[in-house]
Amino acid sequence: MSKKPYIRPLDFKHGCIDLTHGSGGRAMAQLIDELFLKAFDNPLLRQLNDQAAFDVPAGRMVMATDSHVVTPLFFPGGDIGSLAVHGTVNDVAMSGARPLYLAAGFILEEGFPLGDLKRIVESMAAAAEEAGVAIVTGDTKVVEQGKGDGVFINTTGFGVVPPGIDISGNRARPGDRILVNGTLGDHGVAIMSQRENLSFGTGIESDSVALHGLVAAMVETVPNLHCLRDPTRGGLAATLNELAQQSAVGMRIEESSLPLREGVRGACEFLGLDPLYVANEGKLVAICAAEDAEPLLEAMREHPLGREAAIIGEVQEDPNHFVQMQTAFGGMRMVDWISGEQLPRIC
Amino acid sequence: MSKKPYIRPLDFKHGCIDLTHGSGGRAMAQLIDELFLKAFDNPLLRQLNDQAAFDVPAGRMVMATDSHVVTPLFFPGGDIGSLAVHGTVNDVAMSGARPLYLAAGFILEEGFPLGDLKRIVESMAAAAEEAGVAIVTGDTKVVEQGKGDGVFINTTGFGVVPPGIDISGNRARPGDRILVNGTLGDHGVAIMSQRENLSFGTGIESDSVALHGLVAAMVETVPNLHCLRDPTRGGLAATLNELAQQSAVGMRIEESSLPLREGVRGACEFLGLDPLYVANEGKLVAICAAEDAEPLLEAMREHPLGREAAIIGEVQEDPNHFVQMQTAFGGMRMVDWISGEQLPRIC
Ligand SMILES: Nc1ncnc2c1ncn2[C@@H]1O[C@H](COP(=O)(O)OP(=O)(O)OP(=O)(O)O)[C@@H](O)[C@H]1O
Ligand SMILES: Nc1ncnc2c1ncn2[C@@H]1O[C@H](COP(=O)(O)OP(=O)(O)OP(=O)(O)O)[C@@H](O)[C@H]1O
Ligand SMILES: [Mg+2]
Ligand SMILES: [Mg+2]
Ligand SMILES: [Mg+2]
Ligand SMILES: [Mg+2]
Ligand SMILES: [Mg+2]
Ligand SMILES: [Mg+2]
Repeated sequence: MSKKPYIRPLDFKHGCIDLTHGSGGRAMAQLIDELFLKAFDNPLLRQLNDQAAFDVPAGRMVMATDSHVVTPLFFPGGDIGSLAVHGTVNDVAMSGARPLYLAAGFILEEGFPLGDLKRIVESMAAAAEEAGVAIVTGDTKVVEQGKGDGVFINTTGFGVVPPGIDISGNRARPGDRILVNGTLGDHGVAIMSQRENLSFGTGIESDSVALHGLVAAMVETVPNLHCLRDPTRGGLAATLNELAQQSAVGMRIEESSLPLREGVRGACEFLGLDPLYVANEGKLVAICAAEDAEPLLEAMREHPLGREAAIIGEVQEDPNHFVQMQTAFGGMRMVDWISGEQLPRIC
Repeated sequence: MSKKPYIRPLDFKHGCIDLTHGSGGRAMAQLIDELFLKAFDNPLLRQLNDQAAFDVPAGRMVMATDSHVVTPLFFPGGDIGSLAVHGTVNDVAMSGARPLYLAAGFILEEGFPLGDLKRIVESMAAAAEEAGVAIVTGDTKVVEQGKGDGVFINTTGFGVVPPGIDISGNRARPGDRILVNGTLGDHGVAIMSQRENLSFGTGIESDSVALHGLVAAMVETVPNLHCLRDPTRGGLAATLNELAQQSAVGMRIEESSLPLREGVRGACEFLGLDPLYVANEGKLVAICAAEDAEPLLEAMREHPLGREAAIIGEVQEDPNHFVQMQTAFGGMRMVDWISGEQLPRIC
């Protein structure tokens, strides 16, 4: 679309989204051309067809989708743009797949500053480039002021699973070990402290990051990895309960093994949150056979995103599929996946 | 998730969406289980992993995405649920691909009636079943009242292009013929008349429908089809201008050849709209070599979705890439892709 003679370029300093940016005419074409295509630039997107077309070898593919409605749009350690890339790249990666392509759907609110949109789109482009994925197709809709909230971003990812890998939530078996790649609750606490306008002096940042490089290192060491899942909404507690349900097993974790930043611990106490239920955006839970646990832990710790990895518990037989935690004081506590807290719009 | 003992089933009669339905805990799991999984049911979705995994043969694949923000949510001839399936299936199909899988991302507004959501989800499931595509993965977010508008639905589709097919917006050549499969403007007029609370007595319904069956019949007859595009937002005018730009050609269409319902013509006059700019959701524009035009037209007319197909014009050499129309009175008119009208949230 680059040859179209727009009367004047978009005004990223003072301009705002209006309804014409979503109505299929010249204003929308200009926004796509001067903002989205420029930032996301790649040959597949440049085809500008109704769809992106690409060739793949025979094999196992995966698709994952997430809409992102996080508030505030900008937070310590990231923004809705980078989060929208990391969130979907990670859901693709939790199959062991290499993420290749993203589709991006924007729902913009009338009146949203073009400058903020540009910042978000450029952050998204940088996150995609760093993750080695291409944003190959997109969509832009505009809703009236008061019918949206700045910007919502859906991303849908496509990836290719290496032969011989079979990771699924129903593969946990009694005796398996449970690992995480690092500290819990950083993303949720970063968002909540920004939202509540708290400054803890601890400078907690979101852990938002793309995990597929770590996953590649993990499956290279342990191709027979059983389960992988990123503990996002609902935190570690929701993820373990989901996996326990799917695999029809119980789980026991040890509180003393859970990696936790001091600042997160303090903020959670202050905010009345339990770090077990707080969202992460750069963490994964891995489950593997007992004999694979040490080699897996070592492989994780060698990777920059797994330096604080830990074995946090094990899978048990349990007809009730309970998740329990041995507390630091030696007692046992149920980790139900009901969570009293609600942290709306955390991602 | 079906074994979880929810305290009581969802109340589709009086219940409403609240923030807990988006916070990753038990309420969200129940909503997914009792509404989405039940309606969309298929083995890939049932895996309930972070992603859907499937095997594909080597070849050309396509991905397309659209967010749907149509208002009103229910309109003559469809609703946001069926539209969300048709819209993305059609963007996939416009490559000649067979659509296989959809991902669905929901952004729900707090307070939205569960009964309405059920109606939409069931309509979506029915449309997917009719189109022969499976909704294999999804996402559910909730925003506070006043930060959304009932429900927004993103769908992203995945499909496989048959070998030997190469349809792209840059393949129009001077001398090629331009065809449409039926009457123009039905969707936009159906939405506008509902929105303006008009009753024309003509009962115009949206043309919203999945077009890949028609496309399959077309490429069987003319494998060397050059371009396909569905004239959605911006209508026929926007689509022809896009194709003219991409292929670096001009186009000439004839007003007298354009299929148009009397009721749509009348409603457009009444509403001050030009049917050339009004959105369609069950229409396609096809461009093929001159010698393929008659066989293609015949193949289209034999299909239920192409009975009113017509050859509407031809591609010309034109360094300005103009689209022009020979009017019914014999004059020539520019069909610019700027459109004075704005029809916000038509899809
Ligand atoms: N935000 C975006 N980022 C990147 N590319 C985009 C974005 N929005 C649209 N595009 C690209 O611009 C082109 C036109 O998009 P558009 O949404 O108008 O097509 P469509 O889906 O066929 O139409 P409609 O949305 O009206 O059904 C497509 O190639 C699409 O991939
Ligand atoms: N509206 C929906 N329709 C169909 N399936 C859904 C829907 N919402 C979620 N799912 C399915 O439920 C499971 C859990 O979805 P969820 O969004 O919680 O996972 P996630 O994306 O890994 O987490 P998060 O969204 O917090 O990052 C997935 O298998 C997903 O495909
Ligand atoms: Mg289209
Ligand atoms: Mg996710
Ligand atoms: Mg679109
Ligand atoms: Mg996940
Ligand atoms: Mg579309
Ligand atoms: Mg999700």
